[in-house]
Amino acid sequence: MTTSQIFPVVLCGGSGTRLWPRSRATRPKPFLPLVGDTTLFEATLARCDRSAGFAAPVVVTGAAHVDHIEAQLADPAGSQVIVEPSARNTAAAIALAALRLPADAVMLVCPSDHHIADTAAFRRAALAAAGLAAQGWLVSIGIEAKSPETGFGYLQRGEAIDALGFRTARFVEKPDLERAKQFVASGDYAWNGGIFAFGVATFLRELAAHAPAILAAARAAVAAGRSEGHLFFPDAEQFAQAPSISVDYAVMEPTGHKAMVPADMGWSDIGSWDALHSALDCDAAGNAHKGRAELVDCRNVLVDSDGPRVSVIGLDDVVIVVDGDEVLVTTHAGAQKVGKLHGAANQ
Amino acid sequence: MTTSQIFPVVLCGGSGTRLWPRSRATRPKPFLPLVGDTTLFEATLARCDRSAGFAAPVVVTGAAHVDHIEAQLADPAGSQVIVEPSARNTAAAIALAALRLPADAVMLVCPSDHHIADTAAFRRAALAAAGLAAQGWLVSIGIEAKSPETGFGYLQRGEAIDALGFRTARFVEKPDLERAKQFVASGDYAWNGGIFAFGVATFLRELAAHAPAILAAARAAVAAGRSEGHLFFPDAEQFAQAPSISVDYAVMEPTGHKAMVPADMGWSDIGSWDALHSALDCDAAGNAHKGRAELVDCRNVLVDSDGPRVSVIGLDDVVIVVDGDEVLVTTHAGAQKVGKLHGAANQ
Repeated sequence: MTTSQIFPVVLCGGSGTRLWPRSRATRPKPFLPLVGDTTLFEATLARCDRSAGFAAPVVVTGAAHVDHIEAQLADPAGSQVIVEPSARNTAAAIALAALRLPADAVMLVCPSDHHIADTAAFRRAALAAAGLAAQGWLVSIGIEAKSPETGFGYLQRGEAIDALGFRTARFVEKPDLERAKQFVASGDYAWNGGIFAFGVATFLRELAAHAPAILAAARAAVAAGRSEGHLFFPDAEQFAQAPSISVDYAVMEPTGHKAMVPADMGWSDIGSWDALHSALDCDAAGNAHKGRAELVDCRNVLVDSDGPRVSVIGLDDVVIVVDGDEVLVTTHAGAQKVGKLHGAANQ
Repeated sequence: MTTSQIFPVVLCGGSGTRLWPRSRATRPKPFLPLVGDTTLFEATLARCDRSAGFAAPVVVTGAAHVDHIEAQLADPAGSQVIVEPSARNTAAAIALAALRLPADAVMLVCPSDHHIADTAAFRRAALAAAGLAAQGWLVSIGIEAKSPETGFGYLQRGEAIDALGFRTARFVEKPDLERAKQFVASGDYAWNGGIFAFGVATFLRELAAHAPAILAAARAAVAAGRSEGHLFFPDAEQFAQAPSISVDYAVMEPTGHKAMVPADMGWSDIGSWDALHSALDCDAAGNAHKGRAELVDCRNVLVDSDGPRVSVIGLDDVVIVVDGDEVLVTTHAGAQKVGKLHGAANQ
């Protein structure tokens, strides 16, 4: 479908508090083995590795995460790591990567803190998206919307393009529950999971058209940047000029060339402890545990302990996390409030 | 009512597993500050202290507990500690104490692992019971039965004796729920809490009549025993001959001289984590905690942590205990099963 090389562009952004206390400011979510034995970051790289035909990855991150990334990159020397001098949101981060890649390359932009159970389905979608990107489309991989989530943005499907995907009729902000139900029922909507395929030249042209200040700042930051082995440090003063806008707002909504490739690939943003629980292999009663645990008369209980044995009696739909000096016990429904706990908010 | 001195006889028996993991084989329930800052053992002694007119206490215990007792006795030198060479149940334990006390004394037999909120009510009941004991009655303090518990024995009230108490019509084994409800509704029954007042000579006479083998073994063990300061060690070989029978079976059921003094004194046997929760001061939502805790959207939640902060969201009627290498999370209803957990059963 395309002869361009596909470069994974892996975004390793902020820390987040919703998986506290396992995730901490100094040990953010992408670098934890939340599902299985590999971290979400390692799994993101493995999905796009060279054996599957991808080019060497470009990781865009902040200085705080570089040590984690160096420790978890399978092939540091064969990768590029762009160290953002400040966090300026996704449009600027992707611009840095685009400016460090060949103009005829295709970028596959991937968040590093999501879980995708079906790697083959992901790769099929990525190849289709890259094919459309090579034709000049700015492509979202649309996550099949299986439930009326109100925490995600949605993509409305337009007319088909070849056999590869569809025009994106529009981006929809996080809807209320009623609209979310309508979206799911219609079958015409997908979740916006933040996975994109862009031709480098196309992306830079559209950025120039719709968010020129971001492109200018990124270009100046790269021009004045410096390399250290596989690390690249954009200039801090120049990069600080970039408006902090997501790629959705800066490019995807305004562009007239947006497309989507629907994908059903066991995706989860692992956005809370109950979402993580859903992504794990559980026993017949819905229970799962990491670390030592004894569960009696429990259903849908997740235990994740870094040491102490956890004994649980009689609970349903609960997550229990032991992490050093912090213990969290929350209902699934309460998991949305984890980020507001004193421990999570005051790290 | 009586001029006999009242000697508290404090029984410190086996370890129990129902308050695991806070209670452990090496750190049994009587010696833990479960309610407030004093341990149950310390509180038992304080209820019967000299300022309230009681004589020096006699503690009957096993060798494993002596260090705890020495550390928590307010006045070791002024107390007697009888160290049982083996556990032979309550009739033999009380016999040892009786044989080490003056024949005209009154014993007030107290378990050391119960909580009594109303000390004044306890002392009033103890004085009335001692008054009856001095008249030759074997007296139970009957705990006002506030709910149809099936885990306790019951005492049926007979005719009044003076203004002090009542004859005990009969001892009733743990009833089923239907009978327990009838008992509570009738108002004629009290719980058997294992608190007794006996004249020493009366007790030994009744023991001789109804359980002579126990008396013989205890007498021989005391005769061949040895003192070490305030510690007394009955002879092991002789004491091992004593049948292992509770004082209820051995003496109280068969005797024709049993009486009871009803008492409403905020008693709890702290027989499980939910019972402990009921005995604690709670906030308006029914929550209580020891150690660092943050409770969000919780009702009737007890947190007891020896170190880590415990953050809880959205739970009702749950107890959470953190104790070193063990974490327990149980519903109130599930608390009865704590003793069967691997951690509790295999200490």
